Amino acid sequence: MLQKITYLTFLLLCFCGCSLNKMLPENSDVNASALKQIDTTTQVIESVHLKSPDGNIEVSVKNADGQVLYNIKAFNQIIIKDSKLGLRFLEQHGFDKQLVITSIEKSESKSRWEQPWGERRIVVNNYKELLLKLENTTNREKMNIRFRAFNDGIGFRYEVLEQKGFESVSIVDELTNFNFDENSTTWWIPAREWNRYEYLYEKTPLSKVKMVHTPVTLQLPSGLHVSVHEAALVNYSGMSLEKRRGGTLKANLAPRSDGLLVKTQAPFNTPWRTLQISKDAIGLINSDLILNLNEPNKLGDISWFTPGKYIGIWWAMHMRERTWGNDGIHGATTEETIRYMDFAAEHGFNGVLVEGWNLGWDGDWFHNGDVFNFTKSYPDFDIEKVSAYGKKVGVPLIGHHETSGNISNYENQLDAALELYANNEVKIIKTGYVADAGDIKRIDENGIAHYEFHDGQHMVNHHLKVVKKAAKHKISINPHEPVKDTGLRRTYPNWVSREGARGMEFSAWGVPPNPPEHTTILPFTRLLSGPMDYTPGIFELRPSELPPVREDMQRNDPKSRVETTLAKQLALYLTIYSPIQMVADLPKHYQNNMPAFQFIKDVPTDWEQSMALQGEIGDYLVIARQDRNSSDWYLGVITDEQARSFSIPLHFLEKQKTYTAQIYRDGPNADYDTNPYDIIIEEVNLSSQDTYNLSLGKGGGAAIRFIKHH
Amino acid sequence: MLQKITYLTFLLLCFCGCSLNKMLPENSDVNASALKQIDTTTQVIESVHLKSPDGNIEVSVKNADGQVLYNIKAFNQIIIKDSKLGLRFLEQHGFDKQLVITSIEKSESKSRWEQPWGERRIVVNNYKELLLKLENTTNREKMNIRFRAFNDGIGFRYEVLEQKGFESVSIVDELTNFNFDENSTTWWIPAREWNRYEYLYEKTPLSKVKMVHTPVTLQLPSGLHVSVHEAALVNYSGMSLEKRRGGTLKANLAPRSDGLLVKTQAPFNTPWRTLQISKDAIGLINSDLILNLNEPNKLGDISWFTPGKYIGIWWAMHMRERTWGNDGIHGATTEETIRYMDFAAEHGFNGVLVEGWNLGWDGDWFHNGDVFNFTKSYPDFDIEKVSAYGKKVGVPLIGHHETSGNISNYENQLDAALELYANNEVKIIKTGYVADAGDIKRIDENGIAHYEFHDGQHMVNHHLKVVKKAAKHKISINPHEPVKDTGLRRTYPNWVSREGARGMEFSAWGVPPNPPEHTTILPFTRLLSGPMDYTPGIFELRPSELPPVREDMQRNDPKSRVETTLAKQLALYLTIYSPIQMVADLPKHYQNNMPAFQFIKDVPTDWEQSMALQGEIGDYLVIARQDRNSSDWYLGVITDEQARSFSIPLHFLEKQKTYTAQIYRDGPNADYDTNPYDIIIEEVNLSSQDTYNLSLGKGGGAAIRFIKHH
Repeated sequence: MLQKITYLTFLLLCFCGCSLNKMLPENSDVNASALKQIDTTTQVIESVHLKSPDGNIEVSVKNADGQVLYNIKAFNQIIIKDSKLGLRFLEQHGFDKQLVITSIEKSESKSRWEQPWGERRIVVNNYKELLLKLENTTNREKMNIRFRAFNDGIGFRYEVLEQKGFESVSIVDELTNFNFDENSTTWWIPAREWNRYEYLYEKTPLSKVKMVHTPVTLQLPSGLHVSVHEAALVNYSGMSLEKRRGGTLKANLAPRSDGLLVKTQAPFNTPWRTLQISKDAIGLINSDLILNLNEPNKLGDISWFTPGKYIGIWWAMHMRERTWGNDGIHGATTEETIRYMDFAAEHGFNGVLVEGWNLGWDGDWFHNGDVFNFTKSYPDFDIEKVSAYGKKVGVPLIGHHETSGNISNYENQLDAALELYANNEVKIIKTGYVADAGDIKRIDENGIAHYEFHDGQHMVNHHLKVVKKAAKHKISINPHEPVKDTGLRRTYPNWVSREGARGMEFSAWGVPPNPPEHTTILPFTRLLSGPMDYTPGIFELRPSELPPVREDMQRNDPKSRVETTLAKQLALYLTIYSPIQMVADLPKHYQNNMPAFQFIKDVPTDWEQSMALQGEIGDYLVIARQDRNSSDWYLGVITDEQARSFSIPLHFLEKQKTYTAQIYRDGPNADYDTNPYDIIIEEVNLSSQDTYNLSLGKGGGAAIRFIKHH
Repeated sequence: MLQKITYLTFLLLCFCGCSLNKMLPENSDVNASALKQIDTTTQVIESVHLKSPDGNIEVSVKNADGQVLYNIKAFNQIIIKDSKLGLRFLEQHGFDKQLVITSIEKSESKSRWEQPWGERRIVVNNYKELLLKLENTTNREKMNIRFRAFNDGIGFRYEVLEQKGFESVSIVDELTNFNFDENSTTWWIPAREWNRYEYLYEKTPLSKVKMVHTPVTLQLPSGLHVSVHEAALVNYSGMSLEKRRGGTLKANLAPRSDGLLVKTQAPFNTPWRTLQISKDAIGLINSDLILNLNEPNKLGDISWFTPGKYIGIWWAMHMRERTWGNDGIHGATTEETIRYMDFAAEHGFNGVLVEGWNLGWDGDWFHNGDVFNFTKSYPDFDIEKVSAYGKKVGVPLIGHHETSGNISNYENQLDAALELYANNEVKIIKTGYVADAGDIKRIDENGIAHYEFHDGQHMVNHHLKVVKKAAKHKISINPHEPVKDTGLRRTYPNWVSREGARGMEFSAWGVPPNPPEHTTILPFTRLLSGPMDYTPGIFELRPSELPPVREDMQRNDPKSRVETTLAKQLALYLTIYSPIQMVADLPKHYQNNMPAFQFIKDVPTDWEQSMALQGEIGDYLVIARQDRNSSDWYLGVITDEQARSFSIPLHFLEKQKTYTAQIYRDGPNADYDTNPYDIIIEEVNLSSQDTYNLSLGKGGGAAIRFIKHH
C-alpha cells in the first residue's frame, strides 16, 4: 500500500440558524406523536446540528466532498467521529457520492404512550428531529435521512422517496458507519457464524471484534456506554456490524440467497439505526429508545394475550428422561400433559408447553427437512382431550411449531396449523427454526431450494407473516432461533417473546454451560432488544449427577450443570424481562423445595415500572420492578462468578409506607460451584428510607417481594 | 435451540476395487502431463478412496443421504473429518443434495516441467487422480469433482458440464467445508476487512479465528502442518474461509457488487481447493502443489523477462524526503531518475522504479478517484529523456500505474499507457490498487458506479486482462494491493511478483512496524501462494531519528523503525522469494556501508533449486538456494524476537568440493532493538561435510554466499 500523506481538511460551516421558540406542551395522548415542523430551508446545506431535548447529546451532519457524514457528541465528548451515510443500489446511481443536502426540517415531539404489557406501563417519548433532504447531483435522485435525538440516544433512518426509476430497488450496500474509538471495551457475539445468536459474549477492545450482531454494547474510554442496534426491522435485512479500519463498525446486511441485500421498491424506509447512550451501564437498561422508534400498536385490543408463567414438557427432554420422538419414553403424551396441567393449575401457572406431540420427530429432523406435520399428532397424544382438560382446569395448552428451518413446509401448513390450535384453546405458540445460520430452506415457485439467513429479508418477512396470521386467531408468538428483536412488539403486541441468545438449555448440555457472568451480560446486550424466553427456574442445579433414565439415554456432558445458586434462579425472573416466563424445571424438583418455589408462584411478569438501580456489564445487576396489578415491588440482584456485597437504598418504594419484604437470598456459604443450594428465606419490614445491605455468594442472587402495608 | 439427541449412522461401504497394475514410466516431457485412465465404473458409488503416490495421504469420498462428503487421512490420522462438497445456484437446482455418484475414473500422472524462472528450475508433478461424476437425482443435472492426491497434499475442484439450462450460471453458495480439529493452532489474517491482505498474522486456536484469507496455515494437535489455499483462480471469486461450528472452515467467496458470488456459464471449472500437508513446517515451503495445479505456460517464450534487482524513487517518499505530488520536493524528476539510474548501473541493478511521474497525485487521490492520467507526466519529468538515458546505461525504467482502485479509469487508458511504456523500454510495471476492500470502483455501461472486492470475480478478471495485455508488449506485471496469488505465474509467467501482505513500508510508518516474527511467519503463510515484492534491504534502520527534510514533513510515528538487525535485511533476500527484488533504501544509505551492500549486489533472484532446511512458524527459518546461473549456493537464516543458535549441516553443497563462504551475520551484540547494526562479515572455507554453527541476535539473521572452488 501507499501511504496517504496529505489529507483534505474539510471546511465545517456551522449551521445553527434554527431556534426552538416554542416548546410543545406535555401531551398525554397515548399512541399519538405530536410532531410539529418548525424550520425549513431550501438552500444547499453544508453542516447542520441536532441536540437532544436535554442538550446532552448532539448529532452533526455535514456534506464533505459529496458525501454525507455525521458525528455524535455526548456529554461534551465526540463519541462517533465523522462516519459515512448512504445506500448503494444495483440499478440506480445510489446515494453514496455526489450528494447535496438541499433542505432540512427541524421539529420536536413530546408524548407518552401506554404499553399493553411490558417493563413499564407508560413510556415517555420526547425527541427532537432533523429531516435532511438529499439529492444526487448526477441525476437528481432523492432521499431523506431522518434523525431523532432523544435524551437516551440517537436514531436515524434512510427514506427513499417514490420517484421515476425506483419501481424496483435492489440494495447492494448500506454505507452506514459507526466510527468509535477503537479502544472501547466491547461486548459482542459473532454474526454470520453457524449458531445464529447463541454464543457466549466476548469482551474485547473494539479493535479485536469480528463481524458482530446487534445490539452490540461498548464502554468508551471516557466511561460512556453506547449500544448500537436497530429498530423496526420490516421488509429489510437484519444489520450486523463488521469491523473496518480503526474503530469503525460498518453496517453489513444479511444477504439474501440471490446475493442482494434487500429487494424492495420506493417509497421505503430503512429500519432505524440506533445508538443508546448513557453515562452508566444501567442507563442502557432504562432506555425506551428502541420501542419509541417503532410504530404504534396496529392490532388494537390485545386483551386476549395474558402475561404469565408456563411450564412445559421440555426440560425432561434435556434431562434425557423423555424424548421428542415416539420411542417408548415419548414426552408428549395425553397422560403426561394432563399431569402437567394439574400441576400448573395447582400453582397458578397459565400454560403448558408440549413439544413433540406432532409427527416428524423420529428421523434426522434437523436442518430444513420436510418431515414436520403441524396438524397430525402421535397416537399417544389426543389434542382435543388435553385442550378440553386444560379448559376445565384453566390451563391452556401452549402450542409448538418446530419448523427445522424449512419455512416453505411451515408456510404451506400454517393456516391449518393455526386453525387447529385456535380450535384447541391455544393462546401462545412457541415456534422453532433449528437450522444453521444461512440454512433456512425456502422453495421457490419453480421448485428450486434457496437457503436464507435467520436475519435476512425473507425471514424478517416470514416472521411478521406468522405473527400477523396468528393475531387473526388471537394467538401470540414466541419464536426460538428467531430473527433478533427490534421492538416490533410495540406494533404487533402478540409478538410476546423470543429466544435469540444462549438460554438456560445450554446449562443442561454443558457445551460449556452458561457461566455465571452470562446472565450479568445479557441485560446490557441482548435484552436491550426486547423480551427473552430464557426459561429460568431450575431447581435441580446438577442434573448430570442424576442416574440416566434408560441405558441408551446417558445424561449430557458430565460437566453439565447450572452455574448459579438457587437464589439466583429466582432472581432471573426479575433481571430478565419477558411477559411470559417459563417455570422450566420438572414438577418433581419444585415439589422438593416448596418454600423457594413460592417466589416463582408469586412473581408477576407484567410491570407498572422497572428501574435498573446498580450494575456493571458482566459483573452484577440490581433492578426494581413494580407489579402492574398490585402495589407490590420486587427487587432482583445477581452477580457473576464473584461474591459481592450490595447497599441498596430502597427509594423506589412509596414514601411513608412500610413493606413486608419476603427475601430469598444466598445463604452465607452459597457458591454456585460448591454449595448452590444454600438459601435464606426470611421476612423483614422495610421502607423507602432504608438501605438494604445484602451479600451474594459466587454466582449468586437474591429476589425480594415487597408487600405494602395498608 | 433444541438439542439433537439422535444421529443417523451413515453406512460406509468401502470401494477399493481399483488396482493400479501399471505404474507409468518417469516422463521427462516438460509441460506435458501424462494422464492415463485406468479404471471406470458406471454403478452408483457410495464410497471411494484415493491415495497419494507414496500412500501417506488418502482422501475418501462418500455419498451420505444425497450429500457428497470427503475426508482426508494423512500419516494414519484423520486430518479433515467428513466435510461437505457442493455448489448452489440462483436459477438451477444446484449440487447440494439429492446427489448420486454415477461413476468414477482413477488415473495416475508422473511428469516434470521447467520453470522459466522460479525457486527451482525443475518441478516434479506426480499425482493420482480421481474423477467423480455426479448427478442430481431431481433433474439429472451433471457435475464432476476432480481430486488429485500428491505426496505433498490434495487438490480438488468442481467441473460443471455443458448442459441444457446452464447457459447462464449464477453461483450463490459454494458448500466446500474443511472440517479440522478446532484445537489446531492457526496462523491467519482476517478477510473482508478494510485493508485487503495487509495485516499482521494472528496465531490462535482454530476455534478463535474469524473469516480468514487463504493461504491459512494450521498446525494440528498431532503436529502435522496443513495450509489451505486455492490454485488457478480464473473467472471466479477468491475464496476466503469462514469459521463455522467446531473446527469447520467453510468456503466464502468474495461477493460481486450485484450480490452474486460468481456469474459464469457452463462448462466451467472452479479453482482448485488445495491442502498442502506436511509432517513439519518446512515441508509446506518445499511443496510445489499450487504451481502443479495450474495450467502450463500459455505465453511461450518469456525470455524478455529478466529476473533481477531494482531500486526506486519510493522509500524517499516514505522517509518524507520526497513526495509523489508536485510540491517543491517532487521525487519523480528527470534529474533524480538519472541519478538513480547511475547508481543502479554502477552496482549492477536492472531497473529504477519511479512513482509519481504521472499526473494525478496532488489532490485526495485515495480511493477510486478519476484523477490519474497514465500517459501525461509532470513538467519536471521527461520520460523520453530518462528512458534514453536508461537505455544508454543499461538500466530500464520500471513503470508505475497507481489506479487508486478505479479500474474503469485505468482500463480506459490501459492500451495507451502500455504503449507509452513499451516505447520507453519499460519491461516491468508496478501497478497499485489503493482502495479499501470492497471499494474498487467500476463504472458500468450505464454510467453507474459499482464497488468490488480486490478478490472478487471482477478484479480476478481485471488483473488477468492487464497481465495478458502487458504480455503483448513484453511487459511484466507486479501488482500492489493485488488479488492474492494462486500460482498463475506458471500459466502467465509475466505475472512476476506482487504485494498482498504487510511489506517493509509498514516499518517506515510505525503503525506499528512489522515485528521481528512477521518475516518468520510469511514464508509459511503468504509466501506459499507465490513471490512477494516485500522490498527488503533497508540499511537505515531507525529512520525516525533523522531530522525532517522540511518543517511540514515531520517523520512518521516516532516509534517507526525497522525491527531487524542489518544482517537480517540481507537474509530477507533469501527467505522471501521473488524474481524481482527491490533494493529499497536510499542510495546514500548504501554508500555508507559498502561492505554489507556487497551481498545485495551479489545475491541472485533466480534459482536452480531451493530447500527449506529448518523452521518453525513464527520462530525461525533456515533456507538454502542454488543460483540458477552459477554453481553458487546461498544460505539465509532469520529469527524472530528471540536470539537463537543454529547447527546447520551443509549437505546441500556439492560433495567433495570446497566452498568459500562469504558470511554476513549478526555480531555478538546484535539486537534489533538495541544494537541493530552489529554485523560480522567474514570469509571461511566450508564443505558439504561441515556443520555450520551460527548464533543470531534478537530479530537477527545471516546471509551466506558459497562460492565453489574449481
